[in-house]
Amino acid sequence: MAPISKNIRNLRHLKDYKSKIDDFLQNLMLEARGEGHGEVVDLSEHILMAGGKRIRPMLLLLTYEMLKGENMEEVLPLATAYEIIHTATLIHDDINDNSKIRRGVKTIHEIEGPVKAQITGDWLFVIGFGLGGQYQKQIVDLMAETCSKMASAELKQIEHIHNISTTIDEYYNVIEGKTAGPFASGCKAVAILTGQSEEVQEALYNFGMQLGLAFQLVDDLLDVIGDDRLGKPRGLDILEGKMTLPLLLGIKNLKNENKKELLDLISKFHLHDLKKVLHLLKISGSIDYCRTLVNEHLNSAIREIDFIEDNQAKRMVLELAHYVRSRYD
Amino acid sequence: MAPISKNIRNLRHLKDYKSKIDDFLQNLMLEARGEGHGEVVDLSEHILMAGGKRIRPMLLLLTYEMLKGENMEEVLPLATAYEIIHTATLIHDDINDNSKIRRGVKTIHEIEGPVKAQITGDWLFVIGFGLGGQYQKQIVDLMAETCSKMASAELKQIEHIHNISTTIDEYYNVIEGKTAGPFASGCKAVAILTGQSEEVQEALYNFGMQLGLAFQLVDDLLDVIGDDRLGKPRGLDILEGKMTLPLLLGIKNLKNENKKELLDLISKFHLHDLKKVLHLLKISGSIDYCRTLVNEHLNSAIREIDFIEDNQAKRMVLELAHYVRSRYD
Repeated sequence: MAPISKNIRNLRHLKDYKSKIDDFLQNLMLEARGEGHGEVVDLSEHILMAGGKRIRPMLLLLTYEMLKGENMEEVLPLATAYEIIHTATLIHDDINDNSKIRRGVKTIHEIEGPVKAQITGDWLFVIGFGLGGQYQKQIVDLMAETCSKMASAELKQIEHIHNISTTIDEYYNVIEGKTAGPFASGCKAVAILTGQSEEVQEALYNFGMQLGLAFQLVDDLLDVIGDDRLGKPRGLDILEGKMTLPLLLGIKNLKNENKKELLDLISKFHLHDLKKVLHLLKISGSIDYCRTLVNEHLNSAIREIDFIEDNQAKRMVLELAHYVRSRYD
Repeated sequence: MAPISKNIRNLRHLKDYKSKIDDFLQNLMLEARGEGHGEVVDLSEHILMAGGKRIRPMLLLLTYEMLKGENMEEVLPLATAYEIIHTATLIHDDINDNSKIRRGVKTIHEIEGPVKAQITGDWLFVIGFGLGGQYQKQIVDLMAETCSKMASAELKQIEHIHNISTTIDEYYNVIEGKTAGPFASGCKAVAILTGQSEEVQEALYNFGMQLGLAFQLVDDLLDVIGDDRLGKPRGLDILEGKMTLPLLLGIKNLKNENKKELLDLISKFHLHDLKKVLHLLKISGSIDYCRTLVNEHLNSAIREIDFIEDNQAKRMVLELAHYVRSRYD
């Protein structure tokens, strides 16, 4: 496999696609401001324009070109809809998790309180659905189904907070609904938009699902092994009682004293215990196993689109897939 | 004007329309349950099926027939979408207002906490938009615009909490966005659906707006003059610091000692002060003036649809409009 750049900003080709999304978002907010939604636009922009990586919408633009879509304007509202709905869920999640920082800035919840954060999230949902609602019924139904599953998965995740007997299946259920589902749904929506057969739609769905699973596993790993220089504090998942895969596998694999120590550490977790947790996870084999799983999901993703002939956009889709892993390389 | 029955359950003809909505909702929830959304369906049904009056969706079904729409199945998802989105906003508002009771049952927020209430509201938004997204772009755009304005109005309302210098214009701005706008939007959407001219669409929009304003003013009035037997506790708006029109007009009209007393009472309001507040509002002329405004908005609404020839559905639409006022007669 070719060496992979460590930072998406180095993936030169992708920059143009990111700009398209950013410009579209900026225009959308400008328009809403003109329609008298100044306050909610200010609140939204604070998070929406704070420098998200735009992985999801970029993936959709590239998938569109990979599938020989020829009119970028046709797919931009769809790609942006997914990004906006994603941002809406982040804003609502941040209320629930009492998170202080998002995309490097203070959360709306932290600055303005939960009420305004909730309304801002609601507003972004509406804007996202307004954009998605312009497409054919099959796409609208797919988006609604995806978002519906996101809400159910969010409820399931809450049930599993601090629950050390969460099973691996339950974990996968949650991340399929919350993270991987929207990736899968977006890729399938683009397949529908470009008029692909049901078979191709399904392949794109699976591609997105596997990519999304890898993406979430990397996120989970970064919470314990991440580089502090990335600006994302580590240990927050553990602090919030989230049962991530590295933890679950650690609990499952360790025995006796080690297991007891890990359970003790995570049940009354302090950030300064992270090193100890990481050490235990490493000796449990959980970290290595998660890395293997990331590779497996990425390889599965890539296999799903094997049937698509090589083209410039496909190479960039693959580059984006590789970037997912590169975040912790 | 013909005598008006005091309770919508007595409006026999309307019952069939209410059943259609209730059945549609019930099927929708059943389907979602089958798709694995059991928990969020339970939470949703708790409020959704708790016996709302279904004024909004009934109005849309009747408007559809009034405009000679012939296939009820065509409009049912639209009418239900408006009801579901309305319910989603109620669930979210109840978190923000820390309300204990909704539609005669405990709020989700009260039973399950704010996080699950928020997710339930989000899920219902999604379901509502999924239904609305099945219609033509003009309707989708209209729904998105309406919901966008609802969020902005909600933000404005928060700014005016406990703010006694809120102007009448600002008050109308908020209730146009929050309550009347969705009535207007729903009626216009039905006009679009039945292929009416732009002129007719506009008339239906204005009809809904005026009806919705009357509806909100009656709600505001009921908070001070309501009949406790209706099961809705009074004085809650004042307790929450909401600047309703009866209060704003009372503050504006009273002078000297009376004005001082009213301001004192509402700034540190206790429910046992309601009688005193009501007395002051009565002598200020605010209650009578609000009643006059309700009549004016209702008359304006009715005038907007004067051009529609008499038919059975139109008579029921008018009956529904009269019902709005009958709630405090």
